[in-house]
Amino acid sequence: MRMGKQTVKLEAAPTISNTAATVGKKEGEGPLAEDFDVILDDDYYGEKSWEKAESKLQEQTAKLVLQKAGLSESDMNYVLAGDLLNQCVGAHYAMRELDIPFLGLYGACSTMAESMMIGSMLIGGGLADNALCVTSSHYCSAEKQYRYPLEYGGQRAPSAQWTVTGSGAAVLEAQGEGPYIHAVTTGKIIDMGISDVNNMGAAMAPAAADTLTALFKDTKTMPEDYDLILTGDLALIGSDVLCELMDKNGYNIYPMHADCGKMIFNIKEQDVHAGGSGCGCCGSVFCGHIFKEIKKGNIKRMILMATGALMNPMTLFQGETIPAIAHALVITTEKEAFF
Amino acid sequence: MRMGKQTVKLEAAPTISNTAATVGKKEGEGPLAEDFDVILDDDYYGEKSWEKAESKLQEQTAKLVLQKAGLSESDMNYVLAGDLLNQCVGAHYAMRELDIPFLGLYGACSTMAESMMIGSMLIGGGLADNALCVTSSHYCSAEKQYRYPLEYGGQRAPSAQWTVTGSGAAVLEAQGEGPYIHAVTTGKIIDMGISDVNNMGAAMAPAAADTLTALFKDTKTMPEDYDLILTGDLALIGSDVLCELMDKNGYNIYPMHADCGKMIFNIKEQDVHAGGSGCGCCGSVFCGHIFKEIKKGNIKRMILMATGALMNPMTLFQGETIPAIAHALVITTEKEAFF
Repeated sequence: MRMGKQTVKLEAAPTISNTAATVGKKEGEGPLAEDFDVILDDDYYGEKSWEKAESKLQEQTAKLVLQKAGLSESDMNYVLAGDLLNQCVGAHYAMRELDIPFLGLYGACSTMAESMMIGSMLIGGGLADNALCVTSSHYCSAEKQYRYPLEYGGQRAPSAQWTVTGSGAAVLEAQGEGPYIHAVTTGKIIDMGISDVNNMGAAMAPAAADTLTALFKDTKTMPEDYDLILTGDLALIGSDVLCELMDKNGYNIYPMHADCGKMIFNIKEQDVHAGGSGCGCCGSVFCGHIFKEIKKGNIKRMILMATGALMNPMTLFQGETIPAIAHALVITTEKEAFF
Repeated sequence: MRMGKQTVKLEAAPTISNTAATVGKKEGEGPLAEDFDVILDDDYYGEKSWEKAESKLQEQTAKLVLQKAGLSESDMNYVLAGDLLNQCVGAHYAMRELDIPFLGLYGACSTMAESMMIGSMLIGGGLADNALCVTSSHYCSAEKQYRYPLEYGGQRAPSAQWTVTGSGAAVLEAQGEGPYIHAVTTGKIIDMGISDVNNMGAAMAPAAADTLTALFKDTKTMPEDYDLILTGDLALIGSDVLCELMDKNGYNIYPMHADCGKMIFNIKEQDVHAGGSGCGCCGSVFCGHIFKEIKKGNIKRMILMATGALMNPMTLFQGETIPAIAHALVITTEKEAFF
């Protein structure tokens, strides 16, 4: 059922039946280490390039979540995946190894939310019984593609974020014991004129505020209805901007807002400047830590919202600013929606 | 309703209510010139870069189809778009200008079919009343990104294809007079080990054969049930490979197969070697020529299938082969499905 302009309420709410998360060495030294399924001791993951390592991250994490869920590839209706690499090759070379109909997405760092949003709509609309949602990012392949070769040893700006090496995978099913996806809010592309690639949090925060405001209005809910409003990778600066923008819109989200980019590292000790970023940041934190917290009963009602910056290095060289997007999901442990 | 492993039959079949197509100068000198809405006389489209020109192609074509359909941006539930440029910036900078919830896709040259497939599932499942599907490609931005700078004047291989400068946009609606999308078949990623970037048709044909065979099996239909089986950009070589592979699978598609990459140019006279390619090839030929042929009553039952090659230049430098995908739609002028 459509609610307002941007939100769909899923009357038959799909279940997130299982998740898996793999991260790199540095992420495995952070505060959430215990909640990841696999921590690499070598960021090449035994491969000859960072790009091949990133594909392997997605492939192995996807296979792991199927194993945890007791499902085989032939049981799955769809896999929805994407990543930051040019032409999404992280996903393509990974999903080549899986015998599952494939829907390729590009949402930059919003991909975990985009894949779960489309997957849950397909299930909620009766078009699929299940869907596998996967994404990844890799610090080394991202630095090489977006910024400088690692060997160059470029100085990082204090506002810069650290791309997470990691992958998250989630299985959505029509039937199950929850947590349930009750509503999804699809973002519009928002560009407030920021062109500083070293301050992606600030570029993405207005898109997050736009989508979150739409979600509250469409569902007629308020921040205090949720235990947690989790963003994907706004990190230190973007999180502050989001909370301020929401405050101006009349929503106080300070008490229940958290951000995967702030959670995955010990920010000061691990020298990651503004915090974590990348598709794998939201992917691994939600599919690792948060899913376990929901299962333990520590989170009952939450919003998962991931943001993406939709430029590429060349468009910035050509004088463009950074368009951004945010997609959000309402996830609760209750079978019936509370709104 | 799910039919077989890869196909969904849409009981409430969405209508393709209108389409628009814009092409470049060379495409406007080809045999389909009369059926395009706009033919550029300058491939820069008044912009300072080819990439900005490609974004403008999508933006203007999207706005044109809304105008033709008598719809405003605020009427639209979703826009689904993507293209070949790194991080899909063709779509992002275009859709920044449209106030519509955005779903970003990456399917390489299969994007027109992928966007219409997901869009029609969202409508068919009752999750949306309508969707705008858009894609583009640009010869100059694609050559620069995938092959050589144009100024280099590289010799083209006889098996190479010519990326179409063009954009196609289609509006799908829940209610309307057709043509109707009755079923969609989602492809798997298929890689038969081809690594020659100058022979993309051959790399993509096995994926097309895989999806088309699945469609026939899932829907229990045969090639002779269709007036037209249209592929997106297999061009001369890939089309031959597809027809041969289908013949081996027991399906004779020679009589009714056609390919947008073979249709859009006078192949010999226009010196395009194996024929056209790119997201905009299927986009502009379907949204220009084919939609008009359906409306004239010259096509009653067809399969639209677009293929995509899912590598990037770097993965080939790293020794990888070319994974490919194909997505297909059954489109007819009859309100009820014949299968």
